Amino acid sequence: MSEIDKYPSRAGRKARLEPRVDPVVYALDPLELAAHLTPDQVAQYERDGFMILHDVFSVEEVRCFRDELDRMRRDVNLQGHDEAISEPDSGEIRSIFSVHNISPVFSRLASDARLAGIAQGLLNDGVYIHQSRLNYKPGFSGKEFYWHSDFETWHVEDGMPAMRALSMSITLTENTQNNGPLMLMPGSHKHYAVCTGKTPANHYLASLKKQEYGVPEADLLTKMAKQSGIVSALAKAGSVIIFDCNVMHGSNSNITPDPRSNVFFVYNAISNRVAEPFCEQPPRPEYVSSRRHIERITPRQFDTGSYR
Amino acid sequence: MSEIDKYPSRAGRKARLEPRVDPVVYALDPLELAAHLTPDQVAQYERDGFMILHDVFSVEEVRCFRDELDRMRRDVNLQGHDEAISEPDSGEIRSIFSVHNISPVFSRLASDARLAGIAQGLLNDGVYIHQSRLNYKPGFSGKEFYWHSDFETWHVEDGMPAMRALSMSITLTENTQNNGPLMLMPGSHKHYAVCTGKTPANHYLASLKKQEYGVPEADLLTKMAKQSGIVSALAKAGSVIIFDCNVMHGSNSNITPDPRSNVFFVYNAISNRVAEPFCEQPPRPEYVSSRRHIERITPRQFDTGSYR
Repeated sequence: MSEIDKYPSRAGRKARLEPRVDPVVYALDPLELAAHLTPDQVAQYERDGFMILHDVFSVEEVRCFRDELDRMRRDVNLQGHDEAISEPDSGEIRSIFSVHNISPVFSRLASDARLAGIAQGLLNDGVYIHQSRLNYKPGFSGKEFYWHSDFETWHVEDGMPAMRALSMSITLTENTQNNGPLMLMPGSHKHYAVCTGKTPANHYLASLKKQEYGVPEADLLTKMAKQSGIVSALAKAGSVIIFDCNVMHGSNSNITPDPRSNVFFVYNAISNRVAEPFCEQPPRPEYVSSRRHIERITPRQFDTGSYR
Repeated sequence: MSEIDKYPSRAGRKARLEPRVDPVVYALDPLELAAHLTPDQVAQYERDGFMILHDVFSVEEVRCFRDELDRMRRDVNLQGHDEAISEPDSGEIRSIFSVHNISPVFSRLASDARLAGIAQGLLNDGVYIHQSRLNYKPGFSGKEFYWHSDFETWHVEDGMPAMRALSMSITLTENTQNNGPLMLMPGSHKHYAVCTGKTPANHYLASLKKQEYGVPEADLLTKMAKQSGIVSALAKAGSVIIFDCNVMHGSNSNITPDPRSNVFFVYNAISNRVAEPFCEQPPRPEYVSSRRHIERITPRQFDTGSYR
């Protein structure tokens, strides 16, 4: 309520870039992360706002995750539930939210030290899952996802106070240059792209399919892309793409026969848990943004057998 | 009328791959093309069904083509004309047909020996322009174009008897891996993907925006992509992508700020000029498919100054 709005956006504001006032890496010494990341990797993450860790999960682990994905997409109990988001045209399930709550496999994965240990280290705090998602970008008809900073939405619509959160996308299929890979603008996380417009009621219902508010202006995007270039995150299955909550990203469509699937966890610092939204609307529901049900994660060591 | 249908498709046929019964390279000796292409390039074209010639046009020439593109997109006389195709959503002009007839610059370009000389050589015949097009895939909102073989449509809807035609796409902007480049399946031109369905009346009006017939089945595409892989045609502005009339190709959307523009000429062998369509519909109009107005091209030597 009385929380100061460090990053005002929408509500009649003009589109512009403002400096980020929060750190990217909260660890005071990169060596604190030595168990997981080299100092070079930490420096790269600080500079670019993202990094790719290749071959983190074994072929067998990936198989378990994909089996679980297939099971959930076919789960009749899930169809029609809020958590399951379908393609605008085909009606096929495209995303399932809150998988750390509804799937034992992905619940375990969220606390895997290979993920949660890094999140805890980079944010230098206890962490919890702000949002989790299973993304299935089908072959032939995978839709594009327009440029956005996650933080803008999490801040305005969820009331996340500061930039002290990060996302981890675990690739379940190979992400090639042709199947609509995640594209990022390196360095874009150091500025906050203020968006125009107002937040309409129940915006999340439409925005999970196609975002229309919290979308940066074309001029700002052109400027940012010119400064930074655009990098596609190409990786084999079993890799982890770690990206800062404020890095500009998006993806093109996918007409290739190869689906692009991933599991996606947003780790937020306990000290940064959401407050009242910074807009005139009620908070988004629990399955898109944890608010009441917040569980501090204890990173656990898993081995290949753990996911069977 | 009494022309034999060598490549029947639609009209109740089942989706399947049939062998191509026409040559790819009609020149009897690759050395006949020595003025334009090395024997290796000819062999590659025969094998893959496409090739990229880099840096064919100078920076100055590309500037002339782009100026002409910009002029035409703003030409109020063109807006609302059949030749100008707009984006389904935004209404922005996305393609202009028949540019070799309505633009003096692109009329000259169509007869440039760097293009027409190669077409004539590969097809070993006099050539004319079956179709020409200016494609403008805008930044931020460029739409995808689904997989297709051009020949299937040209055969069924235009009555092109044999596979003795090729396309040349002259890049007017850089084609990067991120801005929805042309994707091709190498070797796919050696089979004909029979499509299902019937050809509806005035199909071309809808299909120029979004194709629904003459679209290969997903199973066939998966099989072809597995066999051949998928290659993105990446090239700087001023390059030429030459591809066989029957190679499977398509492109993803473009959310990057960088537009992807090209001029596109289809060279058909004079001996292969269109007859009656191989479907129950009247032929498509002249601006999509030359029928009455056929002019044999005499390749001409141009230098940089010629396009000013």
